[in-house]
Amino acid sequence: MCRHLGYLGPERTLHSLVYDGQYSLETQAYAPRMTQGNLLNADGYGVGWYQDGAPVRFRRAQPIWTDQSFREVAGAVRASCAVAAIRSATAGFPVDESCAQPFRAGPWLFSHNGKIEGYGGVESRLRELAGDVADVPDARAPVDSAPLFALAVRHWREGAPLGDGLAAALAAITALAPGRYNLLASDGTSLAATTWGDSLFVREDGDAIRIASEPLDDDAGWRRVPDRSLVTAGLASGVRIDPL
Amino acid sequence: MCRHLGYLGPERTLHSLVYDGQYSLETQAYAPRMTQGNLLNADGYGVGWYQDGAPVRFRRAQPIWTDQSFREVAGAVRASCAVAAIRSATAGFPVDESCAQPFRAGPWLFSHNGKIEGYGGVESRLRELAGDVADVPDARAPVDSAPLFALAVRHWREGAPLGDGLAAALAAITALAPGRYNLLASDGTSLAATTWGDSLFVREDGDAIRIASEPLDDDAGWRRVPDRSLVTAGLASGVRIDPL
Amino acid sequence: MCRHLGYLGPERTLHSLVYDGQYSLETQAYAPRMTQGNLLNADGYGVGWYQDGAPVRFRRAQPIWTDQSFREVAGAVRASCAVAAIRSATAGFPVDESCAQPFRAGPWLFSHNGKIEGYGGVESRLRELAGDVADVPDARAPVDSAPLFALAVRHWREGAPLGDGLAAALAAITALAPGRYNLLASDGTSLAATTWGDSLFVREDGDAIRIASEPLDDDAGWRRVPDRSLVTAGLASGVRIDPL
Amino acid sequence: MCRHLGYLGPERTLHSLVYDGQYSLETQAYAPRMTQGNLLNADGYGVGWYQDGAPVRFRRAQPIWTDQSFREVAGAVRASCAVAAIRSATAGFPVDESCAQPFRAGPWLFSHNGKIEGYGGVESRLRELAGDVADVPDARAPVDSAPLFALAVRHWREGAPLGDGLAAALAAITALAPGRYNLLASDGTSLAATTWGDSLFVREDGDAIRIASEPLDDDAGWRRVPDRSLVTAGLASGVRIDPL
Repeated sequence: MCRHLGYLGPERTLHSLVYDGQYSLETQAYAPRMTQGNLLNADGYGVGWYQDGAPVRFRRAQPIWTDQSFREVAGAVRASCAVAAIRSATAGFPVDESCAQPFRAGPWLFSHNGKIEGYGGVESRLRELAGDVADVPDARAPVDSAPLFALAVRHWREGAPLGDGLAAALAAITALAPGRYNLLASDGTSLAATTWGDSLFVREDGDAIRIASEPLDDDAGWRRVPDRSLVTAGLASGVRIDPL
Repeated sequence: MCRHLGYLGPERTLHSLVYDGQYSLETQAYAPRMTQGNLLNADGYGVGWYQDGAPVRFRRAQPIWTDQSFREVAGAVRASCAVAAIRSATAGFPVDESCAQPFRAGPWLFSHNGKIEGYGGVESRLRELAGDVADVPDARAPVDSAPLFALAVRHWREGAPLGDGLAAALAAITALAPGRYNLLASDGTSLAATTWGDSLFVREDGDAIRIASEPLDDDAGWRRVPDRSLVTAGLASGVRIDPL
Repeated sequence: MCRHLGYLGPERTLHSLVYDGQYSLETQAYAPRMTQGNLLNADGYGVGWYQDGAPVRFRRAQPIWTDQSFREVAGAVRASCAVAAIRSATAGFPVDESCAQPFRAGPWLFSHNGKIEGYGGVESRLRELAGDVADVPDARAPVDSAPLFALAVRHWREGAPLGDGLAAALAAITALAPGRYNLLASDGTSLAATTWGDSLFVREDGDAIRIASEPLDDDAGWRRVPDRSLVTAGLASGVRIDPL
Repeated sequence: MCRHLGYLGPERTLHSLVYDGQYSLETQAYAPRMTQGNLLNADGYGVGWYQDGAPVRFRRAQPIWTDQSFREVAGAVRASCAVAAIRSATAGFPVDESCAQPFRAGPWLFSHNGKIEGYGGVESRLRELAGDVADVPDARAPVDSAPLFALAVRHWREGAPLGDGLAAALAAITALAPGRYNLLASDGTSLAATTWGDSLFVREDGDAIRIASEPLDDDAGWRRVPDRSLVTAGLASGVRIDPL
């Protein structure tokens, strides 16, 4: 199933982003509360953030709670915009660092929480729609999320705003195959997300915006995003939720 | 660059296959003698063999000499037909288990020692030539060897003999891009290999046939295969070397 | 908490040992049914078995369900006596292959399911009791189970039968510190186990003996071992349970 | 053999510390120039630095060149005092993260480049000399460097200055066993190092001090430290080299 998390706001450490809160992303790795049948998100993790406008990324194929070194270095890195994800591998795909999200291309970070049903039958068509992305190494990741990412990149490169790129990728895949398509992306100054079959919550807290598969704590400020929505969020514009 | 090794003959342990000889495959991981610019083959390894006619495989993303557990279990497994490989990752491709060869589909094992020059420019075309291989997970590996493998699989599925499938894949890629294309494959009862830019040796020793990127020891029986050759080997037919 | 498993009987594959059964050892890694507070056993695993009378071992620091290569090679290896374990790391100890059990010395395999409370305060004393075990690399593993193992090895080397060695180690540690001490060992022809704070079950099925932290399936033949017991099992003598 | 590196001076990124220079620490992992028989330092690596006066650490059991994620995050972390090391595992010790140095206790970072000959015969005595270090997890690392580290920690805790603690540990071990004992340590404001059997160089460049097993570049400022020396270095006092 995977779980993901986006942040936009005052600079904070990656450590606070990933480990803070009673139901932090780390906790969701071994004890998620809102599951779609799987028990864990222990097949890898990744954190992407922005430094001088460009995305930087840290990923592993191991359970996040077993990585003491990331826990330490995460306290030494600050970010004002970030996307993080923990993975539950769908059967048939490898447990490799290449499959850990967020994916990255140019200024964009991307995470897919969900699954394409009957992927084998639509993979070729999806790749056709995405076009040539040979310059995007992550588009080659051996997992169903990769061509979805490639498709969003194509739309972004053709000028689509962040949220529109996600919506276009979603429209294309839902026309091809059923599945769960909670997508999350950033371009360094804004966040966008879709809900399509899995949970998502947003919280605005002063000038900080959080988008997360599950609330990170019991704060009353977490709002559930209705299914089949597009979330767009910027520091100036705040959070907006539109039906898809 | 990578190094690989094929075996056909009396049953022997995987341990003897990989660790025996003064210049064993393990030794070639840290001290190869015939290099194309790289110093090591330490970015993963894999061994495939046949059990009841079907290929079984063991792979890791780590240097083979650091894997004490494989060293032990390899002494408990016997095979009469095997393909093994050690990897030196080309820059731009990940160091993941998914990229460790041999690759596998149906009865076939496959290894590519080399590199496609300008891969980004020909990747799409190569995948088109390979056709739909959604049922072959290894064809998705995020490395240039994967679509070459997919192409060989297509030819094998269409009825090409083992060596002809390799030759056809080689013809297709060399028409598209320069590179080094030493390929090695097995179907469980025979071996085939190509030389195209890198070293290869064969040794027939009684009823055992070995094909290897470098001689495994100082035995005088190792014969160098000329560049641009196709090697085909079977227990009944012996080793045959034809120009490509 | 960890979970472990011992087998003595007709030759079977390691695959059937570890993956067969509705509540197989693999299943207990992500969904144990009898927990002591922890949710998972995902911090590594190991399998030890006997070949020509000597223990062979395969270990990893990763969750067993993420290891496709072991799943495959396990089908190619057969054993008539084996000890397997999955690990839930106690806080403060590393998630490293060195800490994955079973441990090994001479003909013995050993697994500790449990925890020494206040380990720091008794570590030195425990190591004194164990004496010099510089020739036993596993006695150096950076985890509380290692000096317990060293202590059992000392007793075995001094001539204690398999079960008596475990009982002597248990007597020593319980005199020093509270904790949970379910131990399991083999010498290649028999099994022994203790219960001290955690669950254990035995099953005799024809000429096969299984000892496991949790029943591997719903078969009615699984018998719960009372707490504070010593289990000894041999093919000729069958299973015997004595109070400690 | 291992290679290590200490830095004291103006804040710089960990990336520049580890990857800059024609013969950077990363390069020394696959192509060291000054070897003691081994060809590589590919069995793990670690970097320790100071944040708010306390050591922070990042370690892995893999070759440093295969770790793309550390390469990225290292550009986001700045330090004015650091110790880094790459490892070539001595036969008999595991390739585990626990064994990757620098080790750490309180404010101290420590690295041992070398090997205790006949370690098994002196391990117990060494541990006795070190006393009780149950509160120092790294002292349990299953490698010969760990009790050397524990011994230095004991001296530091008893009030010895940084260099004197290293010298005392060195005096103790050389009285027990032959070997190579290039040690390196920091307390966050100074560096100290010994040479005993392996190469070491220092470079003072404005207000930056570097100590390294091999010069990181062709700069003429690198000075070779004579064998059997103690190096002490502080920003106010500069570099001092005394015979041991």
